[in-house]
Amino acid sequence: MTPVDPASALALPHSDGSALFVPDDAPAVGSTATVFLRVPTGDGATGVHVRSTPDGEAELFPGTVDRTTPTDTWWRCEVPVRNPDTHYRFLLTGGPRGYRWLTGAGVHGHEVTDAADFRLAVPPAAPGWARDAVVYQVFPDRFARSPAADGRRTPAWAHPARWQDPVDAFGPTVATQLYGGDLDGVTAHLDHVAGLGADTVYLTPFFPAESNHRYNATDFTAVDPLLGGDEALARLSDAVHRRGMRLLGDLTTNHCGDTHTWFRRALADRGSAERGFFYFAGPDSDAYENWLGYDTLVKFDFGSAELRRRLVEGPDSTAGRWLRPPFSLDGWRIDVGQMTGRRGRDDHNRAVVRALRRTLADSGRDALLLAEHSFDASADLAGEGWHGVMDYARFSTPVRSWLRAPDAEEHRHPGLPPPVPRLPAEASVATMRAFTAARPWRATATSWSILSSHDTARIRTLVRTREVHEVAAGLLFTLPGAPMVFAGDELGLTGTSGEAARTPFPWHAPETWDGQTLDAYRALAALRRRSTALRRGGLRWLAADGDVMAFLREAPGERLLVLARRAPGRPLRLPAVPLGLTGEAPNVHGGAPPLVADATSTAVLPGDGPTFQVWQLA
Amino acid sequence: MTPVDPASALALPHSDGSALFVPDDAPAVGSTATVFLRVPTGDGATGVHVRSTPDGEAELFPGTVDRTTPTDTWWRCEVPVRNPDTHYRFLLTGGPRGYRWLTGAGVHGHEVTDAADFRLAVPPAAPGWARDAVVYQVFPDRFARSPAADGRRTPAWAHPARWQDPVDAFGPTVATQLYGGDLDGVTAHLDHVAGLGADTVYLTPFFPAESNHRYNATDFTAVDPLLGGDEALARLSDAVHRRGMRLLGDLTTNHCGDTHTWFRRALADRGSAERGFFYFAGPDSDAYENWLGYDTLVKFDFGSAELRRRLVEGPDSTAGRWLRPPFSLDGWRIDVGQMTGRRGRDDHNRAVVRALRRTLADSGRDALLLAEHSFDASADLAGEGWHGVMDYARFSTPVRSWLRAPDAEEHRHPGLPPPVPRLPAEASVATMRAFTAARPWRATATSWSILSSHDTARIRTLVRTREVHEVAAGLLFTLPGAPMVFAGDELGLTGTSGEAARTPFPWHAPETWDGQTLDAYRALAALRRRSTALRRGGLRWLAADGDVMAFLREAPGERLLVLARRAPGRPLRLPAVPLGLTGEAPNVHGGAPPLVADATSTAVLPGDGPTFQVWQLA
Repeated sequence: MTPVDPASALALPHSDGSALFVPDDAPAVGSTATVFLRVPTGDGATGVHVRSTPDGEAELFPGTVDRTTPTDTWWRCEVPVRNPDTHYRFLLTGGPRGYRWLTGAGVHGHEVTDAADFRLAVPPAAPGWARDAVVYQVFPDRFARSPAADGRRTPAWAHPARWQDPVDAFGPTVATQLYGGDLDGVTAHLDHVAGLGADTVYLTPFFPAESNHRYNATDFTAVDPLLGGDEALARLSDAVHRRGMRLLGDLTTNHCGDTHTWFRRALADRGSAERGFFYFAGPDSDAYENWLGYDTLVKFDFGSAELRRRLVEGPDSTAGRWLRPPFSLDGWRIDVGQMTGRRGRDDHNRAVVRALRRTLADSGRDALLLAEHSFDASADLAGEGWHGVMDYARFSTPVRSWLRAPDAEEHRHPGLPPPVPRLPAEASVATMRAFTAARPWRATATSWSILSSHDTARIRTLVRTREVHEVAAGLLFTLPGAPMVFAGDELGLTGTSGEAARTPFPWHAPETWDGQTLDAYRALAALRRRSTALRRGGLRWLAADGDVMAFLREAPGERLLVLARRAPGRPLRLPAVPLGLTGEAPNVHGGAPPLVADATSTAVLPGDGPTFQVWQLA
Repeated sequence: MTPVDPASALALPHSDGSALFVPDDAPAVGSTATVFLRVPTGDGATGVHVRSTPDGEAELFPGTVDRTTPTDTWWRCEVPVRNPDTHYRFLLTGGPRGYRWLTGAGVHGHEVTDAADFRLAVPPAAPGWARDAVVYQVFPDRFARSPAADGRRTPAWAHPARWQDPVDAFGPTVATQLYGGDLDGVTAHLDHVAGLGADTVYLTPFFPAESNHRYNATDFTAVDPLLGGDEALARLSDAVHRRGMRLLGDLTTNHCGDTHTWFRRALADRGSAERGFFYFAGPDSDAYENWLGYDTLVKFDFGSAELRRRLVEGPDSTAGRWLRPPFSLDGWRIDVGQMTGRRGRDDHNRAVVRALRRTLADSGRDALLLAEHSFDASADLAGEGWHGVMDYARFSTPVRSWLRAPDAEEHRHPGLPPPVPRLPAEASVATMRAFTAARPWRATATSWSILSSHDTARIRTLVRTREVHEVAAGLLFTLPGAPMVFAGDELGLTGTSGEAARTPFPWHAPETWDGQTLDAYRALAALRRRSTALRRGGLRWLAADGDVMAFLREAPGERLLVLARRAPGRPLRLPAVPLGLTGEAPNVHGGAPPLVADATSTAVLPGDGPTFQVWQLA
């Protein structure tokens, strides 16, 4: 784990999947994709090939010099897009450095496996809007109550709570404590969402269920009456879309509740079609496979064609029907995507994903298919896989581990390993690079960067201070990936676990809001909104060393330099010529002075910290 | 690319897939596998978990200390074998080094992808005999003529050659120059094969075809009469098996010849079942997909269930029937395995491999399924994939690039990229590690290590000298993988390309044989035969630096230390205590003195070179 220093980093050849390097980022199968490689002046390479593996056979295709600039030579190569999962890498030859491969993992002086090859996405690719989105996550029971909520009867399973009551995060009512937030409550607070700069509302499940989280659905054909029923969802959808915003639902394709109508029928009638939807221990047994030992969550068996039809295939399936008016969802977040369709020797995962992609594509809604997948999702993102994932692995874990306070309090489920400890920047950057390299760039750009969610401790609890929280938020809005904000993070809410983080939104106590944190989120969202480089640009790491990270985001015509420090330290010194810094680069976030080269042609970045700064180089 | 030095290497935690670390190396799906991790004394780790991803969900399971030795602490972990492709890695925590992952790629202080996770093989696993095998590759037209060959009529397509004629490697008769070697010729020379120490004869194709290489079969139901027909194969099989040896055929599952009966029928009758075996441009077109532009090689479309039945499924398919008496093949080498079943959006590869595995397993012959796959085969070796591959990527390329003479003459097909240049040992070892890490250990142990084949320049031509050739042969017989010897390599035959390497075996000119090279091959094969550590042991790299490599091969009760030098240099110094060197370790190959620790507890290895030495530590 070697620190990254700017002089070395700027001397390296570079490519990624952004527009500077892959102008058409969803080329059709059967076409040829043009890809570019930037080689710094002075590298000395005299030849470039691109290597791909059409139909499984590795082939090399020679590149040509496209253009030269004062800082770089740009090579152009043509890659045959023969298969849905097309990957490639560059071979540099000649000059003092000789034979080298460039993959998404960097430069190698020896043969490497295909694991870090650059990967293309093919059509139908993830929706463009999804790469530009700022997502706001709403856990409906805890976001806002409409006046109608007061009139609803508490179901037998629930333990009602008042909005001001503390959350039972570790006790027996963790799943049954019901605050009574509803969808009209969400509709009533869209000004806050829009004011933050978010444009996509993601609702955790709205199906009826005997829990506050509703991941154990009893029925996929209706909105929970406790949330206001189908009409409330239609009203919310209408309000969201009138603002030009988008609305996403949350679908459990791995399991349903043990109270689900399908499962009840499977128990009641062993000859029913529904019997085949689940894994029973035997034809005469009602023992069933569940999710990680939770007997309320019944695992689906996608060996059943009827289940596939009902749940994921076509406009009348669960996945399809909620995309139609009056609900008009713009896509789904898929719960437990990594396990969906997988059990023992069964692996129906890719078949389910393909069916979902087709259903969404056929809906005509330019809909998003985004999976919960907390681990290495590369195989599931390749080719015609998920559009993106909740990117715990690429973003959350490395950012949280870099910024966590040494004494951060974090409660984890018993049996879970210790959290990743506080690590130096080079460790976090190595992780971000490794996960980014393993999948199509477009999948990363579409995936959700997450500081916290309803399944984690709140970021503010982990980092402890507003100052470091703002560094975290800075990375959220400036690294590749669509930022997802868990409602309340923008106020500095706290919580030591996923359950503890499900705090009722303090509409009733605005004096508790951290206005400075909220302002920072708003400013960062606005910065992202107006910057193509932040939403769609490439990424080049300049520095990763202990307490500091720095990187470039680059799009045609726009270049931003980002500095993140978790603590003060020695100022970073950047060589101005290879950086392409000419004249004065204005600061566009963070308040530092403009960047200029000194007499030694060096730009010196501030050494104070914690800090988060962005300069506009071009 | 950092050189590996012995003191650092011996301080690292280690695991691999060999018996010391995975006692049951083909655990059943549904069982639990016990795996071990060795942590050197002084590392300081206080906790170990193993991480696996049952059904796609990452989970960690705590390990326990199994035992401690003077040099190491051995940790024991239990991995649930939930899926056919089960992978795992270790998490070390506590002590001065803190949070670290150990994968097949080494130790990491940050989160990593699953790409280099250790991988288990599940049953039915590759045959045990295949891991112990020394394979002798015979290209029938060029190995030996029986007396019967003189009486055969030369077919119209062929250009007959006398045994002493030079090979037309680059001219128009490259594929049609026919020397007339046959199967009874092979039978007559089994003494040579056995005398070398080989126990498995691999024949390139024996089906009738209009070429000397026979990869363009006209028929899969008979042995080419030019080779002696079915009876000659039966005689060869009988002779091979009476010696306790094994016999492998070569099957083209990617394509057949344009003269094949199936293809002719497809052309003659557009309504025939055979029409569906191939990719035609349209129902009214006879334009067809071929292999890499060779119109004599017609690509198969495994979308046809009838093709699958005829070629790969069941005892009466091509793959099945030749395993039955009187031919009794012990398995297949599959030509162009990496492309088989793959074209554009079609990927039937895994389905074909599964069908082949089933056919072989059902044959009751403990048969081997080994693919030509020159590139990153990790995805195709995972789970229930190929038993092994011709391991150009893991073995041939790194060994050849380390040992090639700076001015080696190598002819490559036009359009192919430059060969991997002469690289330092650390580059080659990095490559070997990367490819080994990406797949089950058992797949590597079953795969064929290859110095040259009928598709490459001869190793002697590349390395130029007998001395370096013996270093290459040393690595062939001591690194993991079953050694495959291309007939004639053991005599020091030369050839600057695959075609040029297809030299008629010089039975007629024994005075041209390099007896010293032959003796070296025999000695190395014998060493491997009597050493469990070489055939089935683990691998631990001790040194990789420019002109030198050193490694340990370890099995329960046996430890060998191997030193390879391509040139003289500074003697390697090994710390005796962590090496476990007590007393005197005898040299068992190469003739160097026994290894002893000096007064500073250091063992000093010879610095002369080229050299190849093996010592027995235990």
